[in-house]
Amino acid sequence: MNTTALIYCENEFGAIDGKVANGLVRRSEKYDIVGVIDSTKGRRDTGEILDGIANGIPSFDNIDSAVEALNQVPQYFIYGIAPLSGFIDQEQRNIILSAMRKGMHIVNGLPQYFTADDEFVLKAEEYGVQLYDIRKPQERKDLHLFSGRIHEVTTPVIAVLGTDCAVGKRTTAMMLVQALEEQNIHVAFITTGQTGILQGSKYGVAIDVLSSGFATGEVEHAILSADKEEVPDLIIVEGQGALGHPAFTSSSAIIRGSVPDAVIIQHAPKREHYADYPLLKSTSLQKEINLIETFAKTSVIAIGINHEHMTADEITETIEAYETEFRLPTTDVLTFGCDKLVKGILEKFPTLEKSKEICLPLD
Amino acid sequence: MNTTALIYCENEFGAIDGKVANGLVRRSEKYDIVGVIDSTKGRRDTGEILDGIANGIPSFDNIDSAVEALNQVPQYFIYGIAPLSGFIDQEQRNIILSAMRKGMHIVNGLPQYFTADDEFVLKAEEYGVQLYDIRKPQERKDLHLFSGRIHEVTTPVIAVLGTDCAVGKRTTAMMLVQALEEQNIHVAFITTGQTGILQGSKYGVAIDVLSSGFATGEVEHAILSADKEEVPDLIIVEGQGALGHPAFTSSSAIIRGSVPDAVIIQHAPKREHYADYPLLKSTSLQKEINLIETFAKTSVIAIGINHEHMTADEITETIEAYETEFRLPTTDVLTFGCDKLVKGILEKFPTLEKSKEICLPLD
Repeated sequence: MNTTALIYCENEFGAIDGKVANGLVRRSEKYDIVGVIDSTKGRRDTGEILDGIANGIPSFDNIDSAVEALNQVPQYFIYGIAPLSGFIDQEQRNIILSAMRKGMHIVNGLPQYFTADDEFVLKAEEYGVQLYDIRKPQERKDLHLFSGRIHEVTTPVIAVLGTDCAVGKRTTAMMLVQALEEQNIHVAFITTGQTGILQGSKYGVAIDVLSSGFATGEVEHAILSADKEEVPDLIIVEGQGALGHPAFTSSSAIIRGSVPDAVIIQHAPKREHYADYPLLKSTSLQKEINLIETFAKTSVIAIGINHEHMTADEITETIEAYETEFRLPTTDVLTFGCDKLVKGILEKFPTLEKSKEICLPLD
Repeated sequence: MNTTALIYCENEFGAIDGKVANGLVRRSEKYDIVGVIDSTKGRRDTGEILDGIANGIPSFDNIDSAVEALNQVPQYFIYGIAPLSGFIDQEQRNIILSAMRKGMHIVNGLPQYFTADDEFVLKAEEYGVQLYDIRKPQERKDLHLFSGRIHEVTTPVIAVLGTDCAVGKRTTAMMLVQALEEQNIHVAFITTGQTGILQGSKYGVAIDVLSSGFATGEVEHAILSADKEEVPDLIIVEGQGALGHPAFTSSSAIIRGSVPDAVIIQHAPKREHYADYPLLKSTSLQKEINLIETFAKTSVIAIGINHEHMTADEITETIEAYETEFRLPTTDVLTFGCDKLVKGILEKFPTLEKSKEICLPLD
């Protein structure tokens, strides 16, 4: 059964640093999202703000107005911002304390752990609420080092990588999982970030808080577990950052840990600089594809577009241009869905057609 | 002033997992190494075991025989093994407790922190000794995220990378630093591993215990600090692992954090499988060079050979073969020194000739 949750995303809902909240209002299996706090958005429908399609989840100015309008105190308060620094300021600290005072459990995806914060721990006890640090890794002794056993996995593995952070990798991956399941292809989804974990994904860890050997090892372990427990037809792994990213090594850990047979690459054609580094120029899609295919024995089989700052005409034109230039199926999943990606996957892995056939009506 | 230290390296001295001890008997600025414990080596000279040249540092069977022969209790006991698992077993635990009982401070380069071990902490207090976890990172709030400021550094940066772990990257880098200093070229050396820190390097951190954004950030920060404080002619960065390594992402963090203008690559021609992964076949030198040059805007300018399992003739033949195949200066620094590397660097960075000239006698 779902549990009610209010998401805090002041000033950032719909923006890049609000990606945790953006992801959760689009999909949440673990929590029943009842609202998003962002006073800059006023009282609106968050689906309309995000994708132009109502989802029935309102935005609120603050905790008080949310509780009043909802006529209940939600069970969980999720900190839904993902700033580069990973730290909260004093104002946010006060808001979190106020949520605790109202009786909400706190769910924290920051790498700043609330369970290691004396004031939060004390207040949580006082108010009888729990603190959940979802990005806190297990004890070192419980983490897995890379073993190399990933090379024995015979189930096809596809990684959804990208040319930058916050470019739509997880959104594309999750829509693709749904589209494949509708075709009776059983997919195991491996998350690698906090949003995927919050959304309820069963396999995976937030790898950006793990060091070198454990990041690869935990990705490998998640795939080995999913492969054994789910016996899937296909495994899809969520990417993080970008292999060519100037600051983050997460993609390299995901590629080494998952040894993908194929890659779908997500790209924002209009983004000129890396999301968190406005002084560093973005790489080209061509260079990133070449880098991925040099870095690992794999091939990019399809392109997903992030349509930020693009008109409808530009989206269509860019898709046509990419399909000509790269000779790869290209789509914008939020506009056109996943059909092309599914088709590309079935062409790359023809054995999956058999899984599909099982669901065909006998005649 | 130096402080005396005994290194524990049972069963592994001279071998791959003994690389911390191997490095320290070759060079140590911070500690005065008085002996190495490895009962499988008997009482010999560790320099002769390692490189065939006596260094006056004996090997011992155990702590008792070392203390007796040295006629003193050394001040520090350095745990000098670097096993993949990173954990000590019960026998090693007892040996460390015994060193503490004798009054030695414990220096630990494992990612298993002794300062977080209740028994060790208790006993250290009881015996009045200190525990030093040299690989324990600073508090998160004191670590540096990647800023991009590395792109503003104008001092040439060279990274010494390799095709595998434990392949001689640090040894080549440190001999090269010495050879360049002899030419009056002022070099800032940036370490990225526990051995470099133990050896007394002023700049750098053990990056393999840091997560994605901090690994790049701390390498960048070390270079920015060294560049500011030392005003060097050249910066040399120690590599870790390999960019093509199946398990570790450290090289990718070092390349992104240091943005090297040039790379020297260290390779063991006779190594057929990755050091810690006997089932995974090593990459080729050609592929690793291509990967590095695709991953970053840099070029490999020289090759260092690790002569393990090679005869003298094979070393010479391989050097000739590589110089023909790759058209890059190639050497085995332990056999032939660093002249070719220095020459290659001066050709790549002609402005360094000016630094050299400053030391020429006036006439």
